[in-house]
Amino acid sequence: MTDFTEINLIEIIEKIKAGDRRSLSRAITLAESTRKDHQRYSKKIIQQLISHPKKSVKIGLTGTPGVGKSTFIETLGLQLIQKGKKVAVLAIDPSSSKTGGSILGDKTRMELLSKEPNAFIRPSPNRGSLGGVAKRTREAIKLCEAAGYDIILVETVGVGQSETMVSEMTDVFCLLIAPAGGDELQGVKRGIMEMSDIILINKADGELKAIARQTSAQYEGALRLFRHRKCDPPNFPKVICVSSLKSSGLAEAWITIDELVSWRQKNGHFKTIRENQKIASFKRELFNEFENKITKSHDILLQIKALEERIGEDEITPELAAAYLIKKIFI
Amino acid sequence: MTDFTEINLIEIIEKIKAGDRRSLSRAITLAESTRKDHQRYSKKIIQQLISHPKKSVKIGLTGTPGVGKSTFIETLGLQLIQKGKKVAVLAIDPSSSKTGGSILGDKTRMELLSKEPNAFIRPSPNRGSLGGVAKRTREAIKLCEAAGYDIILVETVGVGQSETMVSEMTDVFCLLIAPAGGDELQGVKRGIMEMSDIILINKADGELKAIARQTSAQYEGALRLFRHRKCDPPNFPKVICVSSLKSSGLAEAWITIDELVSWRQKNGHFKTIRENQKIASFKRELFNEFENKITKSHDILLQIKALEERIGEDEITPELAAAYLIKKIFI
Repeated sequence: MTDFTEINLIEIIEKIKAGDRRSLSRAITLAESTRKDHQRYSKKIIQQLISHPKKSVKIGLTGTPGVGKSTFIETLGLQLIQKGKKVAVLAIDPSSSKTGGSILGDKTRMELLSKEPNAFIRPSPNRGSLGGVAKRTREAIKLCEAAGYDIILVETVGVGQSETMVSEMTDVFCLLIAPAGGDELQGVKRGIMEMSDIILINKADGELKAIARQTSAQYEGALRLFRHRKCDPPNFPKVICVSSLKSSGLAEAWITIDELVSWRQKNGHFKTIRENQKIASFKRELFNEFENKITKSHDILLQIKALEERIGEDEITPELAAAYLIKKIFI
Repeated sequence: MTDFTEINLIEIIEKIKAGDRRSLSRAITLAESTRKDHQRYSKKIIQQLISHPKKSVKIGLTGTPGVGKSTFIETLGLQLIQKGKKVAVLAIDPSSSKTGGSILGDKTRMELLSKEPNAFIRPSPNRGSLGGVAKRTREAIKLCEAAGYDIILVETVGVGQSETMVSEMTDVFCLLIAPAGGDELQGVKRGIMEMSDIILINKADGELKAIARQTSAQYEGALRLFRHRKCDPPNFPKVICVSSLKSSGLAEAWITIDELVSWRQKNGHFKTIRENQKIASFKRELFNEFENKITKSHDILLQIKALEERIGEDEITPELAAAYLIKKIFI
């Protein structure tokens, strides 16, 4: 990366506001960099752009590998661009730092969408802790907002706590499911259904069409068992069958997302949800940072291990052990 | 409460080991007391009893008010006592400190069970924080274990985080549901299905029998959508229809609980789950204590409020705010 000066920082900021993708890309790279000077520049850029008016709707999407997230996003993205929308796609894959892979690392993915001037696609390097990934993703979202994207799609494979993180950063959270019945059924990760606003059954075409309808009915039934949330219209959460291959159901999916967003905006939930999400993230990060901080100390780490052993042997209750450790930490 | 000396502490300990209910009750009262000397005595009693052999199976039970938890527990309890088991019932109601109510405050509840010499029923005073309730409940469980109860039933109405707490202290977690269909359906609290090992559809008698079967099928369908857990036999989590009124299905419910416990014991999960639960509780309590600690400081509380305001205004990201606050706290 070339070095930056105060002068070209101003240039980058102005270009991002004008929607220049190259500048947006450079700013995200700065935000992702671990170099101290880059972090300083990045902070300045983001600080300058915060007051810039924002209109972006942020959509989270999760689903196991192979369910067709990229094809779905590409097809939906192209339809949105045809409607005159500007679409940004960010991908998070917390597993990639371990496996060396990356969701969007494969350049051939989303080939058509990436050629569109109104699309911006960015894989995430996903180095480091969940907190680090959360920070960088949030900054990338902010930069895309400033660059005037109408829709920001945040994709995650849902490893560890990444869906919780993405659901805390997006206005609508979608779960993409492959049609399956009986023995084939893999089952969703526990806890993921409860954070989903819309469940999309993908590959609802050809031979799988009937199975997709069945799967859809199963999820509809399951969602009805959950207590209704005040922040949802009466008929939500919803299940929709889509086919990225046949481009069917995508218009309905978008109408549904839009319906939910409009309803929440009209009923005052939209802003409240965003605020609550941010406070929840603050709390989660505070705990993460606290954990990082205390486990960095070799002495405290040894004490935690000793306490965990004693807890395991029923020599001390978890509650007393926690109270004891807190006293030690805060003298 | 009468005052204690070292001498009658030894007496209490020996009497608890011999299964004396009055001594057990006094020890729980000591554990619940906020008086420093009582806490000191309580610690000594619990410390002395920890090495005592334990055989208790701990069962958590949750369900909304009106679903029939008490009647279910009473009927199941009486059946277990007939089988020669000793049964303890502990109740947690974190809402009672606010509402003034209490699950077992009504003395007429579980009248038959409370007359049984092999039963021990104890409502919880539930004063104070979740951490406080957790500590006292865990100690009450420990005391019941030492008193030789085969089965310890822990009942909660599921307010706030109390089910998570109870699920972290019990070997099997049951969700009690009232039969309902269509518009009547209240829906369960999000997240509660995922922590349930067994879902019991209560009131499966008379006019409600058919609806109970329908409800059962709905929950069975929903549970099939979750990913299978390694710590579960292939056909778990299970849904069972019961009627406390007709005493039907309770034998099956018990066989199912027993089947799950035996399977987990045989496959090495039982001990692992208990260990993981305790470590999870330790971590949760550590975070709670950390939060209590920092929010006790007027200065830090003001900073948190200021940061939350700035987060709300998008002037700072939650991640940066958390990092900033941690730096301040740990200088």
